[in-house]
Amino acid sequence: MSTSPEKDRVFVTRRETFSASHRLYNPNLSEEQNIEVYDKCASPNGHGHNFVLEVTVVGEPQQETGYVIDLKKLKNIIRAEIISKVDHKHLNYDVDFLKGVIPTSENVAKAIWKILKSKITEATLYSVRLHETENNSVEFKG
Amino acid sequence: MSTSPEKDRVFVTRRETFSASHRLYNPNLSEEQNIEVYDKCASPNGHGHNFVLEVTVVGEPQQETGYVIDLKKLKNIIRAEIISKVDHKHLNYDVDFLKGVIPTSENVAKAIWKILKSKITEATLYSVRLHETENNSVEFKG
Amino acid sequence: MSTSPEKDRVFVTRRETFSASHRLYNPNLSEEQNIEVYDKCASPNGHGHNFVLEVTVVGEPQQETGYVIDLKKLKNIIRAEIISKVDHKHLNYDVDFLKGVIPTSENVAKAIWKILKSKITEATLYSVRLHETENNSVEFKG
Amino acid sequence: MSTSPEKDRVFVTRRETFSASHRLYNPNLSEEQNIEVYDKCASPNGHGHNFVLEVTVVGEPQQETGYVIDLKKLKNIIRAEIISKVDHKHLNYDVDFLKGVIPTSENVAKAIWKILKSKITEATLYSVRLHETENNSVEFKG
Amino acid sequence: MSTSPEKDRVFVTRRETFSASHRLYNPNLSEEQNIEVYDKCASPNGHGHNFVLEVTVVGEPQQETGYVIDLKKLKNIIRAEIISKVDHKHLNYDVDFLKGVIPTSENVAKAIWKILKSKITEATLYSVRLHETENNSVEFKG
Amino acid sequence: MSTSPEKDRVFVTRRETFSASHRLYNPNLSEEQNIEVYDKCASPNGHGHNFVLEVTVVGEPQQETGYVIDLKKLKNIIRAEIISKVDHKHLNYDVDFLKGVIPTSENVAKAIWKILKSKITEATLYSVRLHETENNSVEFKG
Repeated sequence: MSTSPEKDRVFVTRRETFSASHRLYNPNLSEEQNIEVYDKCASPNGHGHNFVLEVTVVGEPQQETGYVIDLKKLKNIIRAEIISKVDHKHLNYDVDFLKGVIPTSENVAKAIWKILKSKITEATLYSVRLHETENNSVEFKG
Repeated sequence: MSTSPEKDRVFVTRRETFSASHRLYNPNLSEEQNIEVYDKCASPNGHGHNFVLEVTVVGEPQQETGYVIDLKKLKNIIRAEIISKVDHKHLNYDVDFLKGVIPTSENVAKAIWKILKSKITEATLYSVRLHETENNSVEFKG
Repeated sequence: MSTSPEKDRVFVTRRETFSASHRLYNPNLSEEQNIEVYDKCASPNGHGHNFVLEVTVVGEPQQETGYVIDLKKLKNIIRAEIISKVDHKHLNYDVDFLKGVIPTSENVAKAIWKILKSKITEATLYSVRLHETENNSVEFKG
Repeated sequence: MSTSPEKDRVFVTRRETFSASHRLYNPNLSEEQNIEVYDKCASPNGHGHNFVLEVTVVGEPQQETGYVIDLKKLKNIIRAEIISKVDHKHLNYDVDFLKGVIPTSENVAKAIWKILKSKITEATLYSVRLHETENNSVEFKG
Repeated sequence: MSTSPEKDRVFVTRRETFSASHRLYNPNLSEEQNIEVYDKCASPNGHGHNFVLEVTVVGEPQQETGYVIDLKKLKNIIRAEIISKVDHKHLNYDVDFLKGVIPTSENVAKAIWKILKSKITEATLYSVRLHETENNSVEFKG
Repeated sequence: MSTSPEKDRVFVTRRETFSASHRLYNPNLSEEQNIEVYDKCASPNGHGHNFVLEVTVVGEPQQETGYVIDLKKLKNIIRAEIISKVDHKHLNYDVDFLKGVIPTSENVAKAIWKILKSKITEATLYSVRLHETENNSVEFKG
């Protein structure tokens, strides 16, 4: 309908949360280096957060539905592909898609992006934002 | 004063809220199709939200005032043109500027953009963001 | 274990949300009286909110579990008995337990209390708090 | 100055946060029983939260200062006695004052109360509230 | 209608905000003592906050309206009696009802209580809560 | 490792708060003009806010650490260079880097940007966002 689709794009964001633990630790570094780099985040038994995940997709609303994407479907994809795998889990040990990854928020956001990119087909994935605390967050836009 | 206005632009955002009801329903679809597309959002008597509206404009702060735009004026425009027409209303039946529109957040944001675009003259409208719930939001940047 | 159970009581709160519409209107009053009492809340086609419901129970943590109540069970009771019946519904027309009730927040909170009181058996219901907007809330303590 | 101190009491609340991991598990129960009681909270490698701690004291404002308690001192007590010992820690393994305790929110709140009760002397400890997530919280009033 | 009014009481809370500056300083103390007591809050040119005021009243919902109190009226009383006098003001110099008072949150909450107590007649004032920051708040219950 | 660094960039945001007072007033304008422009924000004794500052930097996560920037270092820079100079201060009188500047949010955000730009070296400063109230905010992207 539009001759200027760029102009008609709408960004749609779904927010989900998960509670997980992690430990920031690089096995290629010494204990001292790990403590220097990660400080209390390297605490051996790990610590945890209520992570807040915001997934943004972009597209033109369909004329028939007025939706860019059915948010129920987007919610279900995020829950099936991400939340079910990280909620109430330890990000260093329990999550297939984070094996071998130092689970900083930056790396977790990138890993989430990579999975969602291939699963969301009705609209274009635009951004994955991950809040570790109310003061610290990261955003990856692929 | 600046030879690089692009660099001196500041984004200014005003947040307003309104409480409204809506029903997602396309009269061109069958009942079954409406339920398939909209699920509980198609519930016949409608449902409602505390919508949160964030309007962002962009411009260079004026040297005399330090303002991109007087936020009181921006607030008054948003309240006169939008909030007074949608607050404590049913978006399907009571709002002139939504006649014939399926009131998804996407469509409502676009309709709000269209109105504000012509009313805000002191700065450039940049974005209309509409939060339907604490988990679902859309953003239109024209 | 404790000789002073009163002292060992812990309050446990579960927060849930639902999106519903309502209209404040007393059929025993004239149109003019309804508008005088309820103002824009009497708008004929209704309006809506993202209601936030906080249910608080009180009891002594069980020694074996450390729980006053399993919050999953409390969540399931609230969802089965309340949320499933009011979410994406019109409180004046769609909800059995509100038939004949003017759905002010006060009355809705009292009706929710009455239902939950008989369904929560592992701990003692202490309070039902209902937020209609970020600025308006009510609390009923039976 | 007042002949009715009860009437002049003011409640003062300080909010702090900490990020920790925990695992809900009772070694006296079988694996099956633990999973039945704690479900995903019994996940072997633990999980975590951004806990929000609200400590409320009560007292009469001192005439000379207008303070019930110097909030800096209250903050310092909470940080020295609690936050420094639980932040970025695993509540099952790293915290002296939780040894032998199943770290449910109920039990953690009670343990925090016990410590603070003896350390806060300028006012009377009234309540320890602990939010595990945005939806789940407990409060202990001694 | 009820023979047990105590049981039918509902608490109703209205939230308002105001932006004000203040300086904590007791002229009867020396400069050194003021700095010892109030630290950076004694900074000579003052500092400020977005105060959040929560006013709670309690009463039995009226059968005809379902309201304990018309929240519009409560809002109007709070705005006329309090907000209009403190918003965008300096609490030490600009506010009649705080003359001679060290404007700690405790003292401001008590002063607000005293005013509202005599102005709210439809229900019983129960609590005045004042948040100075997201981490510090006080509550006065008269 | 990446041949497409642009694609691997991650945005990292740190949130800090400060409580300050200010007065909006241009000495080159008459009293009447100041009141016309700034209204209650020109109140002679000033007013204040709990400002929320969000600083966003962008860069590629380092392979060794998984960090774009150590958030502790970013926090320390923001606190040393900005928060320590504005918290519990009057922005018109007490802050060196705001001398001669009308302290609108726009101008304060630009001044903060200028300082942080030269101090943050591990990543690229992307945005300074400043919330004056829960409804009003500005963002400067240099």
